[in-house]
Formats: sequence, C-alpha cells, structure tokens
Amino acid sequence: MTQKQQDVLASFRERIHKIQSYGEALALMHWDLRTGAPRKGMDVRSESLGVLSGAMFELSVAPELGEWLQTLEEKAAFAELSEIDQRLVLETRKQYDRSIKIPPKLFQEYTVLASQSESKWEEAKRDNDFASFQPYLEKVIGYTNQFIDLWGPGATRYDTLLDEYEPGMTVAELDSIFGGLRAELVPLAEAIAASPHQPDTSFLNGTFDKAAQRDFGLYILGQMGYDFAAGRLDESVHPFATGLNPGDVRITTSYLPNDVTFALFGTIHEGGHALYEQNIAPELTGTTLATGTSMGIHESQSRFWENVIGRSPGFWQRYFGEFQKRFPGQLNVSWEEFYRGNNVVKPSLIRIEADELTYNLHIIIRYELEKLIFNGGVKAADLPELWNSKYKEYLGVVPGNDSEGVLQDVHWSGGAFGYFPSYSLGNMYAAQFTDTMEREIPDMWEQVSRGELLTIKEWLGDRIHRFGKMRTPSELITSVTGKSLDPQYLVSYLKSKYSDIYRL
Amino acid sequence: MTQKQQDVLASFRERIHKIQSYGEALALMHWDLRTGAPRKGMDVRSESLGVLSGAMFELSVAPELGEWLQTLEEKAAFAELSEIDQRLVLETRKQYDRSIKIPPKLFQEYTVLASQSESKWEEAKRDNDFASFQPYLEKVIGYTNQFIDLWGPGATRYDTLLDEYEPGMTVAELDSIFGGLRAELVPLAEAIAASPHQPDTSFLNGTFDKAAQRDFGLYILGQMGYDFAAGRLDESVHPFATGLNPGDVRITTSYLPNDVTFALFGTIHEGGHALYEQNIAPELTGTTLATGTSMGIHESQSRFWENVIGRSPGFWQRYFGEFQKRFPGQLNVSWEEFYRGNNVVKPSLIRIEADELTYNLHIIIRYELEKLIFNGGVKAADLPELWNSKYKEYLGVVPGNDSEGVLQDVHWSGGAFGYFPSYSLGNMYAAQFTDTMEREIPDMWEQVSRGELLTIKEWLGDRIHRFGKMRTPSELITSVTGKSLDPQYLVSYLKSKYSDIYRL
Repeated sequence: MTQKQQDVLASFRERIHKIQSYGEALALMHWDLRTGAPRKGMDVRSESLGVLSGAMFELSVAPELGEWLQTLEEKAAFAELSEIDQRLVLETRKQYDRSIKIPPKLFQEYTVLASQSESKWEEAKRDNDFASFQPYLEKVIGYTNQFIDLWGPGATRYDTLLDEYEPGMTVAELDSIFGGLRAELVPLAEAIAASPHQPDTSFLNGTFDKAAQRDFGLYILGQMGYDFAAGRLDESVHPFATGLNPGDVRITTSYLPNDVTFALFGTIHEGGHALYEQNIAPELTGTTLATGTSMGIHESQSRFWENVIGRSPGFWQRYFGEFQKRFPGQLNVSWEEFYRGNNVVKPSLIRIEADELTYNLHIIIRYELEKLIFNGGVKAADLPELWNSKYKEYLGVVPGNDSEGVLQDVHWSGGAFGYFPSYSLGNMYAAQFTDTMEREIPDMWEQVSRGELLTIKEWLGDRIHRFGKMRTPSELITSVTGKSLDPQYLVSYLKSKYSDIYRL
Repeated sequence: MTQKQQDVLASFRERIHKIQSYGEALALMHWDLRTGAPRKGMDVRSESLGVLSGAMFELSVAPELGEWLQTLEEKAAFAELSEIDQRLVLETRKQYDRSIKIPPKLFQEYTVLASQSESKWEEAKRDNDFASFQPYLEKVIGYTNQFIDLWGPGATRYDTLLDEYEPGMTVAELDSIFGGLRAELVPLAEAIAASPHQPDTSFLNGTFDKAAQRDFGLYILGQMGYDFAAGRLDESVHPFATGLNPGDVRITTSYLPNDVTFALFGTIHEGGHALYEQNIAPELTGTTLATGTSMGIHESQSRFWENVIGRSPGFWQRYFGEFQKRFPGQLNVSWEEFYRGNNVVKPSLIRIEADELTYNLHIIIRYELEKLIFNGGVKAADLPELWNSKYKEYLGVVPGNDSEGVLQDVHWSGGAFGYFPSYSLGNMYAAQFTDTMEREIPDMWEQVSRGELLTIKEWLGDRIHRFGKMRTPSELITSVTGKSLDPQYLVSYLKSKYSDIYRL
C-alpha cells in the first residue's frame, strides 16, 4: 500500500470513528428522552437532535469521504486491506451512495416532518382521530417516494425500502416466504381456536408488585449472561434496547401491575437484543460494523430469547418456583399450567400484545399494506379500511376504532416503511438457528431445564454475535445453519409446540 | 441594517445556536457518566466526548465566526442590534479571542491530558499517593501557563485565570476582600471554639432511611419552587446541577445513611443552582447568555438556599416537624436544638464537609496557593507541604495524609485553576443579596417560618435569575444591592448568626 493510500485509510477510519461518536451522543439523547427527560426540555432537545444528526449526516456525505472510498476501492489497494477494512469500505460505500443522493435540504425537511408527524401520530392515537394524522402520513409517504426515486427503485419500488432494514431481501423472496407462512399459519390458528383444550389463564389476573417484577427481570438477565457492567435496565413506556457502544448496551422494560409476565418477557426480549450488541468482536468497536447485521437478525436474537427460551417448558420448569416465591400466594398453579397459560394463541387486534403465532399474521398484513402503498399507489386515506378488511380476513377480528387499528404502531409516522417484515424474519431466523443449535448442543433443553443458559449465550456469541456486520444476513444464516432462510423451520416449531399445548 | 448585515446576524445566531446544541449533548453525556453509565462503556464514551467537544471548539473558533463578529461590531451595525444581540456579540468576542489564541493541537493535547490527569488524581486520592499524581499536575500547570502566555497575562498571571470564572474580578480586589475576610473570620472561629455553649449533635448519629431522605428532599425542592417538569433529581457520588437547556435543569445528590441532613443540604444547594438556570428569561434560550453570569453568582444562589435559608431558624421552625416524622423515633429533639446541631462551626480538614464559616478559610488557602503557583513559581512538588502549613496556620488542623490534604479536590487535576474563589464569592454575594432582600421583603423571615418560600424564589427570579449573562457580576450586584461587592455583609451575617448560637 502506498503512503498516500495509508494516509487515506487513516483519514477514512478516523471519519468512521467520528461518525460513530455522533451516533453515540444521539443514541444517548434518544435514550434519555424515553427514560425520563423533563418534559419542558423537549423542544430545545429536538432542535439539538436536529443539529447533531444534521452534522452527522454532513460528515457521512462529505465529498472527501467519497474520494477516500474511491482510493480504497482501487483493486490493488482494496486487496491489501484487512478483512475488516474491506467490509467497512463496502458498507460505507453502500450508505454513502444512499445518502449522497438525498439533497441536504430535503433530508432536513424530512427530519422536521418526521418529528412533527410522530407527535401528531401520538395525539391521533390518543384521540382516535386518523383524519388529523392523515395529511402527515401522506406527506411522509410522499417524501419516502421521493427518496425511492432518488435512490433508484429496485425490482419494485418497495424493494428499495426493504433493503435498508434487511440487506439483500426482496419482495419476490418475501412474497414467497410470507405466502408459505400464511398458508400454514391461518389453518393452524383456526385449529387452535377450535381446540377444546384451552389453557387456563385466570391465575395471571391480579396485581403484581412492581419491585418484585423488576427484581426477577434483573435475575433472569443475569442468568442469560447480560453484562451489567456494560449496560443497565430502565423503565420506559415502550421497551427498547440501545447500544451506545459495545460496553454500554442499555435496555428498558415497561411494568404492568396487572400482568405478571409482560415486563419479564419485555426484559428477556430486549436482553436478547442486548446480548447481540454486547458480544460483538472488540476489534469492530468504533466502526459501523459493530452492530447487528440486519433488523431481522437482531429480532431473531430477541425473539429467540423471549419465545423459544422464555416461553419454553424447560425454562419454566427451572424458574417457576423462584418466580412464584416473588409473588407470595398469588400464583397457585404448577409450572406446567403456568407455561401453558403463557402460551395462549388467540387472534387479537394489537400487534405488540399478540402471541408468537398470530404475530406473524399482523406482520404479513403490514407488509402487504406497505407494498400496496409503494407498489400499488394506495393513499393514506385508504389505509384504515384496507387495514380493517385484512384483519378480518387473516385474523378474523375487526378493530372497533383506528386507535386499535391502523394507528396502533409508531413506525409509519416516522417513515420506517420496510421495517415490519424484520419482526417475522426474526421469528423465522430464530427457528432455523434453534434447529442447528439443538443438533450442535444435543442436551440443550436439559441444560435449559437446569438453568444453564450460558451455553446458549456462548453459542450465539460464537456463531452469530461476534461477527457484527462482517457477515450479511444471508451469509450468516447459511454459514450457521448450512441453508438459506426457510420458513418451514418456524412452521415446524409452531406446529410442534402448539400441537402439544392444544393437543391437536 | 444592510441586507448583508442582516444575513451575517442570522448566520451568527445560527452558529451560536449550533454551539449550544453541542453543549447540550456534551452536558447530557457528562450527566450520564456521573449518574449511572455502565463502567465498560467509559473508554469509548471518553473518545466520543473528545470528538464532540473538539467539533464544538472548531465551531467556536472558525474564521467565519471572526468575520461575522467584525461585521456586527462595526459601530453602525452594533448600534442597531437588540440589547440581547449586543451582549451576545460582546460575550462571543470575548470567548472567541480567548479560544482562537489556543492552537487546536494544543487544546486537544490538553483535553487528553486533563482527562488522564483526572483519572490519575482519583487513583492517587484513593491510594494516598501524591507522587504518582505529581507529574500530571505539573503538566496541567505547564499547559495552563502556556495558555496564560497565549491569552496574555492580566495585571498578574493569575488574573487571567480568575477572569474566566468571575469576569472582571482581579487579584488586587480579591487580595483586599479575602484579606479583610480572613482577619475577621480567624478570630471569630477562635471565639466559637472557646465558647462553652457547644451545640449538641449526638442526635444526628444513627442510620437514616434513604427513601425517607430522598422523599423529604423532593418535598423541599417543591417548596423552593423547583420545577420538576423542567428537571429531575438523581443520585451521584458528588452532588451537582447541570442545565442542559432552560427546560431541563437536573440536579443530583448523594445519600449518607449515617448523616440525616447531608443529602438534604446537597439537594437544597443544587436546587439553588437549578432555580437560577430554570428561571432565565425565555428570550435568551439557545444563546450563550442563557446561563449564570459567573461561577460566583451561581454559587451565591446555591449557598443562599443551602445556608442562609436551609440552615436558618425559621426554616427548621417550619419544617422540622415534618422532617422528624419521616424518621420515626430517631430525632427526639426540639427544632431549636436541631437547628443548632446543624450549625456547628469546627475547623476541619475537608472543604466539602466544612461549615459555612470556616469554609471560607479553606477557599482562601486554595486561592493563596493558586497565586503562588502562577504568580510565585511554586511547583507541584511543593504543594503538599505548603498546603499542610497553611491549614495549620489558618485552621489549626494538619492533614494526616495527602488524601485528606492536597489531594482532596478534583479541580486542579482538570486544570480548573481560578475556580475556587467563586465559592467564597458566592457566600459574600449571598450575604449582600440577603441584606437587600430583608429590606425589600420586610417580613421575609416570618414568611420562611411559615414555609412561604416562593416569595423569595420570585424575588431572586426577578432581580437575578432572569438576566442570565445580560448583566456582569459587578453590574448585577450593583443593580440589585446598590453597592459593589463588600465582604462586610458576610462578616455581619456570620457574626450575628453564630454569636446567637454560641452565645458569644
């Protein structure tokens, strides 16, 4: 490598590092807004967020960065780069090309709009008033369409959006995957609904001490191998995980006094996200590769821990006794009954409250609506009716109002179109990873039933976490499981689990 | 104003606003580090802080800012500026000239050094090992001397440092003020020590519930008019207040289980700082004028609330009953005894534990040592011995080791030379403000004894807080009290209060 190339590499790395530093500040500002920032500071905070994210954007689209990329992409120079630097160049190029196509003024307008639109959505949801939100949603769709035009549409316009959250994923592939999934899940859900063996859930009613809920959540995080010296657990309206840096991966949960497992499953879910970010190889620290490789893979980690482990019989065989002790006199059932009571499948209106089976139908509905918006020209005004008719068709339930219908999710208000499929992809990846794990750790479920969760944590760290963005989602699933993504693993997992619970 | 001048004014204001946004992010990052950021994230966090503070510095020394200032300083243009913009130009010019003289490379070296030096200090204090810290302190002094050379020394070299924290204050003035103060306080402290009427403090021993301490602190903050929608109370090793923006002014305190008022007085103190920042006129928001006008005036607000109000007889007459109830069976004394027990004057080794009288002697010692360093060529190596001999001379006590001597304060490790005098200036300003307040609110103390603290809060807001940096410290003290700073108000206040308590 020539001296000039070496200098360019150093400047390039420094810039990436600088951008990461802005990212850390912004992540902290967002975390703070959601965990207790004073209300009256929000306006100025929003402006500060705008200033810093604008500066971060400028750093990431600066002409010199384009020149450095060109230098490092020259065949001879690229060949001499370390594997990490090669990935970093590829990843940066992708983001650079995406970002450079958006005029800064347009981006800034959009940032302001997205922020206003999120506030409007919050009010509209509270007041059950879609009409007041509709013009904002229409505008957000309009900007997103402009971005698609600027980026250049993929095989379809919606492909361009998908690629942002799940690199390499296409509408063609998702149509096939979701088509297959839907064909299997709808009849399975119907069979479950028709079963005479419905689990008892009455013992889940009551008022459950919040401190005890929190204590048990902290205990389970410890069992999972969450590193408290590299994170913390807080409370927020909606649970989330955020990695400020690999040594600072925070999670939150939300406590419902009348639901004894809501906070716990939220904690386990976010803990799964956090384990991913905490266990990325240290040599990726300070680069854009030190994060999950896609939203779908990220969700696979949270959903694996929440559903595959946290809602498994082995888990409750081991932990129910301790859980029960925290709520004296309140949970007078066996661990088997408790396990079954926490695995009720029932079509419902609200995605985030859905069980792990029908959840996927909620996602398929959103996926189909997003395709209709960007590939089918559907307008914001049409969405409430389309939403309701799809819920009737796939889940057999109809929202009584828009707050529990089309207004329920924040995603669209902030322009996160293409994000929803990640959730179901996560379920599918998780099931496929589990299949491999069960073969590679033959006594895995015995270990779970003894509370030995660290073997699993290590396996995930070794096979998935440490790579960060060094492997694409499809490279990862193939290298770990030997196969590309196949929805049949999820179908088999759900059939097996729920045939047992509902004695189908 | 010409179109060009108007454009320049707009650019100038936008830049100031941008710098404030960086400041908010940095303040949040520091707050977070002190209130519970995970340990393992600290290294990366330090780097991120370095990146952002570097970027903020670059914004504040950029050549275009110098050009904008020149344009706005032209006589005709300046005359047409609003009063706020005029102050903003003057203030920015001052900071710009100060910063522009420091080469960026030197500033960055210094930032890294200061951060290392603070870490080293922490270890050295813990291990009682001044020798390991000495080379760092020597380097920090060296850099500070370089800065003085670059800024250009004032009447003396140390004047240049003083001006940073207390604009307009000089060694000549402080020598006279501190000289007078010392001459009065040393004999007063001696008379107090010789008094046979020493307050009983035995009831202060015990183990006091932390939640009850916290609850009472929150209650008193409310009584003071602290706006919880524009702030929050957290816990940290050392209490502090930080204004992220005028709608987000946070405070922390520290709970000692065996000291029932330590956390409370810390809370009141930081609450006093916070009231200042919360009540700055809204039209200054987003400018560098939206903060306290000097460290000394800031300390006057915290010390006024902590000592003048919080340690007054009226305060405890009103609140002791409620306080007592929070610690059932533990504080079996009258409010008068409790008041006296919380106003013990006793020479001691540790500044932050000192009473409000001898505290000033701790400050005078530091002031004299700082003068010796920068005006007298004293080296870091000489400080421990000088420290100990001054403690013996002024306070009659000698540290048993450097941890309770020269190593006790963080300030010097981070290069904050010139800061210490602010604390005593705060006491003096507070006493002088109080004198005016007592004349303008004749029934002030009756109001305190009825728990009507909001009159005082409003008075401070109206006479001091709202101006932010629109008035210099000397303009402020003169406009409020009709006189320039005079230490005799503090002397009279202390003599009167302690003559009563100790029956001198």
